[in-house]
Amino acid sequence: HDTVDAGATEVPLPDIQQHLNHLFETKVGADVTFNVNGETIAAHRCVLAARSPVFMAQLFGPMKEGAATCDIQIEDMEANVFRALLSFIYTDLFPEMEDDEADVEEGQEADEVVYATWLQWMQDLLVAADRYDIQRLKFCCEEGLSECMDVSSVTSTLAIAEQHHCHDLKEACLNFLRVQSSSSLQEVMSTSDWEHITVTYPSVLNELIAKLAAKA
Amino acid sequence: HDTVDAGATEVPLPDIQQHLNHLFETKVGADVTFNVNGETIAAHRCVLAARSPVFMAQLFGPMKEGAATCDIQIEDMEANVFRALLSFIYTDLFPEMEDDEADVEEGQEADEVVYATWLQWMQDLLVAADRYDIQRLKFCCEEGLSECMDVSSVTSTLAIAEQHHCHDLKEACLNFLRVQSSSSLQEVMSTSDWEHITVTYPSVLNELIAKLAAKA
Repeated sequence: HDTVDAGATEVPLPDIQQHLNHLFETKVGADVTFNVNGETIAAHRCVLAARSPVFMAQLFGPMKEGAATCDIQIEDMEANVFRALLSFIYTDLFPEMEDDEADVEEGQEADEVVYATWLQWMQDLLVAADRYDIQRLKFCCEEGLSECMDVSSVTSTLAIAEQHHCHDLKEACLNFLRVQSSSSLQEVMSTSDWEHITVTYPSVLNELIAKLAAKA
Repeated sequence: HDTVDAGATEVPLPDIQQHLNHLFETKVGADVTFNVNGETIAAHRCVLAARSPVFMAQLFGPMKEGAATCDIQIEDMEANVFRALLSFIYTDLFPEMEDDEADVEEGQEADEVVYATWLQWMQDLLVAADRYDIQRLKFCCEEGLSECMDVSSVTSTLAIAEQHHCHDLKEACLNFLRVQSSSSLQEVMSTSDWEHITVTYPSVLNELIAKLAAKA
């Protein structure tokens, strides 16, 4: 920024995401705290409400619980997933896994462990995004899960897609299953995850049958 | 979002600016009001502080004036300029003039009136951006003023550049003056704005002399 010719002035890139990330990290002016699995995470109510209709209703809606809105207990979610959700809320950037190195135990393939860790992260984020109605984060998770699907992930992803009304992701799972060999499909269907689908979402089985029947 | 093939899922564009703009417009959870020229404008302290070191100091620093920080009087600024400043703070988008039609009076050229209105807007925004230390907005104003400079604007812009320490913009003004014809330069120097420079910032005259002397 020390040019002699003024025509060379370069306007800096937008920095609102960076500024809000700094706000989230420094906690200045935070007016709500969440207790997640014993961890306390502070945040700013107006930012959360601006980004999530669920937070809007919880923090500013007629259903808000008076002064209790300053200290909120979060159930059924890991602290690192909730923190990642807030990070996305403040920055609009897809949150990286906090532990990028998975622990590989003896007898396990490193690739498999990395994939399983990634899969858990994407599925957890999708569930969190759906719970707080953060549509763009939900789409990003759906896209990632669609693109990196394999026989080890398709069943748990299908269950989540069905439970959280992810139409495109469910289609991706069913289309993935449709093109598997008979033996791969049998492998998938022999798992306990498949048993869970059978018991909980039997209508999905009918959708798969229709797809297979329509196979050229 | 109704595609059959999941590979076609398109992730929506980042929407944080849109969400914060909505927050600014709806005022939900606003915790500070500004009185500007008789107008009241509500905002969110944490957003302002995240984006402006001056607001950070005023709203959360040791110098903050206790409960008085909820209701702040703004002096020496038009309400539409302050509103535009806040709009930039929430969205990172360069604020459009609120009145995009200038009133053309009899005997005036429409182009001149439009230019004068635009010039006032850019100069006002630059002053506001400097006052609240919003660097990116300041750069945008400097760039606009540099690119659309003419003999009617160079002197007032030069004074503002000097007053608000805009190095590149001052260079642009001096370089613009350096390449003017002798008669244009005399025209510029015959104005009351130039008299203001002569009285208030005489060192600028020395800088222009040095530039002219260095002319090949």
